[in-house]
Amino acid sequence: MHRYRSHTCAALRKDDVGSNVRLSGWVHRVRDHGGLLFIDLRDHYGLTQIVVDPDSPAFKVAESVRGEWVIRVDGEVKARSPETVNARLPTGEIELFAREIEVLSQARELPLPVFGEPDYPEDIRLTYRFLDLRRETLHRNIVRRTQIIAAMRRRMAEAGFTEFSTPILTASSPEGARDFLVPSRIHQGRFYALPQAPQQYKQLIMMSGFDRYFQIAPCFRDEDPRADRLPGEFYQLDLEMSFIEQEDVFQTMEPVIRSIFEEFADGKPVSQSFRRIPYAEAMAKYGSDKPDLRNPIEMSPVTEHFAGSGFKVFANMIASDPKVQVWAIPAKTGGSRAFCDRMNSWAQGEGQPGLGYIFWREEEGKVTGAGPLAKNIGEERTEAVRVQLGLEAGDACFFVAGLPEKFVDFAGSARTRVGEELDLVDRDRFELAWIVDFPFYEWNEDEKKVDFSHNPFSMPQGGIEALEGQEPLTIKAFQYDIVCNGFEIASGGIRNHLPETMVKAFEVAGYTRQDVEERFGALYRAFQYGPPPHGGMAAGIDRIVMLLCGVRNLREITMFPMNQQAHDLLMNAPAEASPAQMRELGLRVIPSAPKA
Amino acid sequence: MHRYRSHTCAALRKDDVGSNVRLSGWVHRVRDHGGLLFIDLRDHYGLTQIVVDPDSPAFKVAESVRGEWVIRVDGEVKARSPETVNARLPTGEIELFAREIEVLSQARELPLPVFGEPDYPEDIRLTYRFLDLRRETLHRNIVRRTQIIAAMRRRMAEAGFTEFSTPILTASSPEGARDFLVPSRIHQGRFYALPQAPQQYKQLIMMSGFDRYFQIAPCFRDEDPRADRLPGEFYQLDLEMSFIEQEDVFQTMEPVIRSIFEEFADGKPVSQSFRRIPYAEAMAKYGSDKPDLRNPIEMSPVTEHFAGSGFKVFANMIASDPKVQVWAIPAKTGGSRAFCDRMNSWAQGEGQPGLGYIFWREEEGKVTGAGPLAKNIGEERTEAVRVQLGLEAGDACFFVAGLPEKFVDFAGSARTRVGEELDLVDRDRFELAWIVDFPFYEWNEDEKKVDFSHNPFSMPQGGIEALEGQEPLTIKAFQYDIVCNGFEIASGGIRNHLPETMVKAFEVAGYTRQDVEERFGALYRAFQYGPPPHGGMAAGIDRIVMLLCGVRNLREITMFPMNQQAHDLLMNAPAEASPAQMRELGLRVIPSAPKA
Repeated sequence: MHRYRSHTCAALRKDDVGSNVRLSGWVHRVRDHGGLLFIDLRDHYGLTQIVVDPDSPAFKVAESVRGEWVIRVDGEVKARSPETVNARLPTGEIELFAREIEVLSQARELPLPVFGEPDYPEDIRLTYRFLDLRRETLHRNIVRRTQIIAAMRRRMAEAGFTEFSTPILTASSPEGARDFLVPSRIHQGRFYALPQAPQQYKQLIMMSGFDRYFQIAPCFRDEDPRADRLPGEFYQLDLEMSFIEQEDVFQTMEPVIRSIFEEFADGKPVSQSFRRIPYAEAMAKYGSDKPDLRNPIEMSPVTEHFAGSGFKVFANMIASDPKVQVWAIPAKTGGSRAFCDRMNSWAQGEGQPGLGYIFWREEEGKVTGAGPLAKNIGEERTEAVRVQLGLEAGDACFFVAGLPEKFVDFAGSARTRVGEELDLVDRDRFELAWIVDFPFYEWNEDEKKVDFSHNPFSMPQGGIEALEGQEPLTIKAFQYDIVCNGFEIASGGIRNHLPETMVKAFEVAGYTRQDVEERFGALYRAFQYGPPPHGGMAAGIDRIVMLLCGVRNLREITMFPMNQQAHDLLMNAPAEASPAQMRELGLRVIPSAPKA
Repeated sequence: MHRYRSHTCAALRKDDVGSNVRLSGWVHRVRDHGGLLFIDLRDHYGLTQIVVDPDSPAFKVAESVRGEWVIRVDGEVKARSPETVNARLPTGEIELFAREIEVLSQARELPLPVFGEPDYPEDIRLTYRFLDLRRETLHRNIVRRTQIIAAMRRRMAEAGFTEFSTPILTASSPEGARDFLVPSRIHQGRFYALPQAPQQYKQLIMMSGFDRYFQIAPCFRDEDPRADRLPGEFYQLDLEMSFIEQEDVFQTMEPVIRSIFEEFADGKPVSQSFRRIPYAEAMAKYGSDKPDLRNPIEMSPVTEHFAGSGFKVFANMIASDPKVQVWAIPAKTGGSRAFCDRMNSWAQGEGQPGLGYIFWREEEGKVTGAGPLAKNIGEERTEAVRVQLGLEAGDACFFVAGLPEKFVDFAGSARTRVGEELDLVDRDRFELAWIVDFPFYEWNEDEKKVDFSHNPFSMPQGGIEALEGQEPLTIKAFQYDIVCNGFEIASGGIRNHLPETMVKAFEVAGYTRQDVEERFGALYRAFQYGPPPHGGMAAGIDRIVMLLCGVRNLREITMFPMNQQAHDLLMNAPAEASPAQMRELGLRVIPSAPKA
């Protein structure tokens, strides 16, 4: 018989009754029932109940074992009596009567219990991550993560993609976020950088004549701690294709992403066809370029109903600037003064002066608008608003007014808030959509100049002619996101592969040809030598796994995370370097100024 | 029709004759044959011959295109005449008559030709790597590399392993080689390190209750440039299993490694069962712990035949020290004075005083030993040597004498040299074997102390009893390598999971319990809380790919390598950091002393 086990702790079934078997695993729990000892024995695969009766030669050892000791158990498989069968456990029809128990290793008193998974402080969980990871939920999430990534690899291969690894020690790239630097020992005073994303490499792979690249790519950004982002590294499903247009990316990737969601959605519905929502429409209807489409609320402009009305705050704003709009956030079932006042208070908490509303009720067989705004604008206009929005008695509507680019974020938050408060959001669905036609440029108010709004490597719609002839802020890019349930889960674009168009695009944003050559040397050089048309995208693996595991914190799906202070409590990193290391690197640490 | 292509350049067959199709790709070559233009159009998938006749509306454009321009071609598929069919090309039965050609992008004059793949200097190849990678052989090698890695993933999954990624920003670990450091911005003056290997993490994964981990793991070692190792990063097939013994690793991994070799061996024979050769036997027979088993030569000791013989050099050495041995390197078919003298000169070139030999020839129907040694030791001893080694007329034998640990490396080189010179090595085979029973400790002559000979995390054979009772240098470890054709391609061990045994093992090598706690804190801490017995190995992916691609240089199987000076010529890394970056990191570069 094998030294440690004939079966895993998830393997034994009724068919095995009568067999002599050997199991090894962790002592999950020990119970004493009238002299009989029951041990739940756990391994990676599952749990088996061990029974030790006082006559067994194993009893003395069994009495000594404690939680998380590792033991080997030899014994005979017996059927459980009908009343003790555990239907929730795959091995729940049997139990193993121990004949011999060997202690393979012991455990000190646990700083963090594994059984029962009670809440525990983060620093303990991260310092003793090896215990934390034995807990059922986290263990299952991590396995699920690996399964999701394996499914991504499988689906991408089926779609004709080949996985290439790109270098991790590379050059600093001016792509936006802050690089992690790696000092060179051989070239003292010089630094490699860890890649923020393999953007330039994947385009260079297309320049190299390969097609349909993908990678489960580690990415590194030295950003300040944020609640929804762990410091350090994260993973993208990164891909690129040649000789394609935007529609090809959609046709190729929509089935891949949908099938991954379906495989891990636990039966929750997944969008069968992804809507394609232009950026401008997403902002107007949902107040966000990553709308939660499970929320049925769609905003719409109702400016005309307030222009020249008795509600002077809005009427005066509209009169003063033709760009001012009033947007309505319809709130089905929200038609009570209490709810409307609660929303108003919430808005004030968000730093707004308030949130105007109308709510409708039935009075003497007639649907009547109520609230201060309704009073101010009068019955006819109130009714026109109601008809436009298709609202009824028992519903409400909230209003935001001003310059849309200034209020849109708040309007989007209010839409989300209303949907959640009124429980209009069906949480058990995955609503996926493409957001398309992002603006190529945006106005940088600080520097009073035109800037790239997203990826400067994207192809502007209309090409070089648009760059030469069109008002920059009206130019759209072949650039797209996938959103799911209010999160951006992927982003991509068709690339600008023509060097003259690239230079022109940068010139519009105030850069010279020389800037392009210096900042994107390898790519610009490659574009001189027969670049193919190409494009692709990158999906955020951590975000997708969080959605599919139903968790809100990256720590619940990451095996060995750092804490929010970018400190690895398990391995104790970062740490001081030795004087010899610093000497070899030709570096000196500047003593930091004492903190006030 | 699709904007760029209806087919790839590898797709068209005789069945497609008469179809109107669209292809896009690179102009691989243009030829003018009596007015007709022939364009070899290339993409990632293959090559198609385009024909443009002078009457075609595409002719004018076709005349203008140059090598590596990217074009789209519309036209009709026609069958080639029997005498122009190209049997080596999958599309060789057809050609595409162009009706329309669109130039998608142009190429400047090429710094490096793609067609024909002439030799080119390394710096040009790396600076224009995107052109180099379009060349047929390198392109094919890189694709093959991705296929080998995909096969590893598939075989490991079939063997029940799950892929986990381990952190890349981690702690410096005293494992041997030099770490790459990453300065922390948030914790100024402190550093992360890139992992030399996920050794501690994979053991922690086992401590966390997972089983059968693997990873295609990026590893980082800041080593000085060496011919057979690229600076920076390399990849391992890393794996670990719980509740197993050495034999389980062998039973699990031998089929995986064999099947990967078989899949990519192009029909060359692969060892069906891997021999298991104890380290001591490998050193004695082959003079190496990574023997090339395609070389049939096995050395053996012939000390007794020289003890007290007339060859005083050897006889006196043997008399002076009982540890002195004489080893024979039999050389079948090497029995000529010319060959023996050539080997003797080679040995002198290697810094040896010479290489003693005997060769046998047939004289008057009798096999007779010849050469100075034969003369000195006499006929009887010469014949005894011949009989022991099973040599015949036309064969030779070389001899090395002294302390085996001092001459063994040279003896191994001589064995290799003899095998290659005499063409005894069958190059078209993959000979795989396990090397087992490595010594746990070795004598460090410089520091006059016992040191770990390989991995301090391995379990000593005999456990803590051996550590307490046995002469340290005689203790063997549960540690093993896989070798192939003279290269170590994998290395592993059963781990020492018992904290007291671990401390004892380090104490024998002169370390204290505190050293262990400080140097391997996470692992030592984890060992306190129910560690499972575990073990695994790591295979060198780059080496395996090199063997299977039949190349000698890592640059031929690495997509974007640095040069031997650890300089990335494509991306221009490493580079100077900006003053702002240095300020954020709290670092200062020490001006280097001017070089003499």
